[in-house]
Amino acid sequence: MLGVIFGGSSYEHEISIVSAIALKKALKQKLVFIFCDSARAFYQIDENSMRATYFSKGEYKKLKSIALKNGGFYTQSAFGSKKIEVSAFINLIHGRDGEDGKIPALFDFYDVAYIGPRIEASVMSYSKILTKNLAQNAGVKVVEFEKLDRNLAPKMAFPFILKPAHLGSSIGIATVKNQNELEFAKDTAFEFDDEVIIEPFLEGVKEYNLAGCKIGDKFHFSIVEEPKKGEVLDFDQKYLSFSGNSEIKEAQISADLKAKMQEMFAKIYDCGFAGAVIRCDFFVHENEVYLNEINPNPGSLAYYLFDDFENMVNSLSKSLPKERKIDIKYKYINSISSNK
Amino acid sequence: MLGVIFGGSSYEHEISIVSAIALKKALKQKLVFIFCDSARAFYQIDENSMRATYFSKGEYKKLKSIALKNGGFYTQSAFGSKKIEVSAFINLIHGRDGEDGKIPALFDFYDVAYIGPRIEASVMSYSKILTKNLAQNAGVKVVEFEKLDRNLAPKMAFPFILKPAHLGSSIGIATVKNQNELEFAKDTAFEFDDEVIIEPFLEGVKEYNLAGCKIGDKFHFSIVEEPKKGEVLDFDQKYLSFSGNSEIKEAQISADLKAKMQEMFAKIYDCGFAGAVIRCDFFVHENEVYLNEINPNPGSLAYYLFDDFENMVNSLSKSLPKERKIDIKYKYINSISSNK
Repeated sequence: MLGVIFGGSSYEHEISIVSAIALKKALKQKLVFIFCDSARAFYQIDENSMRATYFSKGEYKKLKSIALKNGGFYTQSAFGSKKIEVSAFINLIHGRDGEDGKIPALFDFYDVAYIGPRIEASVMSYSKILTKNLAQNAGVKVVEFEKLDRNLAPKMAFPFILKPAHLGSSIGIATVKNQNELEFAKDTAFEFDDEVIIEPFLEGVKEYNLAGCKIGDKFHFSIVEEPKKGEVLDFDQKYLSFSGNSEIKEAQISADLKAKMQEMFAKIYDCGFAGAVIRCDFFVHENEVYLNEINPNPGSLAYYLFDDFENMVNSLSKSLPKERKIDIKYKYINSISSNK
Repeated sequence: MLGVIFGGSSYEHEISIVSAIALKKALKQKLVFIFCDSARAFYQIDENSMRATYFSKGEYKKLKSIALKNGGFYTQSAFGSKKIEVSAFINLIHGRDGEDGKIPALFDFYDVAYIGPRIEASVMSYSKILTKNLAQNAGVKVVEFEKLDRNLAPKMAFPFILKPAHLGSSIGIATVKNQNELEFAKDTAFEFDDEVIIEPFLEGVKEYNLAGCKIGDKFHFSIVEEPKKGEVLDFDQKYLSFSGNSEIKEAQISADLKAKMQEMFAKIYDCGFAGAVIRCDFFVHENEVYLNEINPNPGSLAYYLFDDFENMVNSLSKSLPKERKIDIKYKYINSISSNK
């Protein structure tokens, strides 16, 4: 049975809850739900309890927490410790814990199978600065950017987009047209993050989202979505966008452009995203395609963009990357000891 | 009391054991030793048992394993769970687990204080490819490189240095002068790693190591060491180099060159290494200084390069970075629920 881990100590904790509830509705199969609360205790949640207020009202606290140990999660009782059987987890913690490498690290360390990027790819895509490095290594174009110094004036001319470097769901993102707006946007962004970047505001830019994964040697791509217009989607809009309350708009684009985005997606994905379903957000500006950002754990795993999501996820769960087995034989210590 | 975590599921597991034993000898204070065995079970090791054969012979297996939970490590007995009191851990796991971000992730997740790079800086310095990105972001020169494709001929001309991208302690590193040597070196390197790089062999290059940390706003630098000559130090040589059996040679260099390396070290360190004692290895070639690699958890924390290591480490342990506190108020779920 597949499991879903959600929640986390993250500004996107609530988004993750909504994301998990939406995914539950989207999949026909039974799932195991593991909630990580804001204090990072784990709870197994009954499918029937999967509603937002169960968490916001703290009802889950009546449950006994479970332990993460070698091989998975274990319930603990007077009769001992019992493993919760899960073939693979979907990492659906958004933002910190889920996307900064912590859950991948915990799962790799404790030998738990999961759908989601491994540590390195998580860290690279969690940071909007390192995403630029990753894209550069992959040979994919990105929009130029400047790292903002808290105390210095930016070199870039107004207007620009200001973004905290490590947050998803558009938290702290602002379009900045003048000095007044800059001060306010800077204060807000640095409240959430220690690193903030700015990018030029691209007049007339088109935005497209493409999700996908690779199973064996074959890429499975979603439709290309053109997200709703608006200067920048705010938290509330994003929040609802994958909860099933929003209509998906397939982009009306040329076959060439679609192929171009798929090609760029594949280059990015091959930089360490094996085992994950990711969403790449692209900008098209003056006939040039740029990677905007990588969403390593997209909301509800972007199920709503795929034709046959359930089969794809089940199939992916059976071809996940495994850590290299390291056999420790104490050869060097033995050779040193015997020389003594 | 400070703790030391060592071992790990790593090709450098044995190096880590020697590293911890050497550090024990170097420090006057009492320490808590936590061993992570190759199966990733944790054990608290009595100071008197800290000898290499205690581990190689599996004597530690007579102990009961301990559990990592919120706040630290806990012994478990019929009378319940008891926390092992440690003010901060020194992360002395070399290679996988220690330097790839896993131990930092586990410690951040479970709110355990530690000396060592956080997740992002660990991941960046663990990979020789991402180290190039980090140096570039910091404005520090690196030697050019090429990522080697398993099945294609390299573009770079012989001779070059071939390195697995993710291993320390010189494992799998070779100087390659011709096609025959290339085949052998490639096979060896890909046995250990999925990514391999090559760098030009720089005739007459000088190598210098500089360790340090930042406490508050002040950098504490070690002496500059000129490591022993040899084409490339092999595993055995490196293995002994921090076990106290090797003589440290302070580099005879100009004040200018020393200042230049300290400046480059500071630029690198400020890219996320707060809380760590790292060692930067530099190349000097034709009057140009290059960062060769970053050692995020250097052997024995490079104590032998410092004047007053013990005070420095104690002082660093009291000024470690802390994760941002995220307060989850369920504001969005509550606002959605009340609108229903």
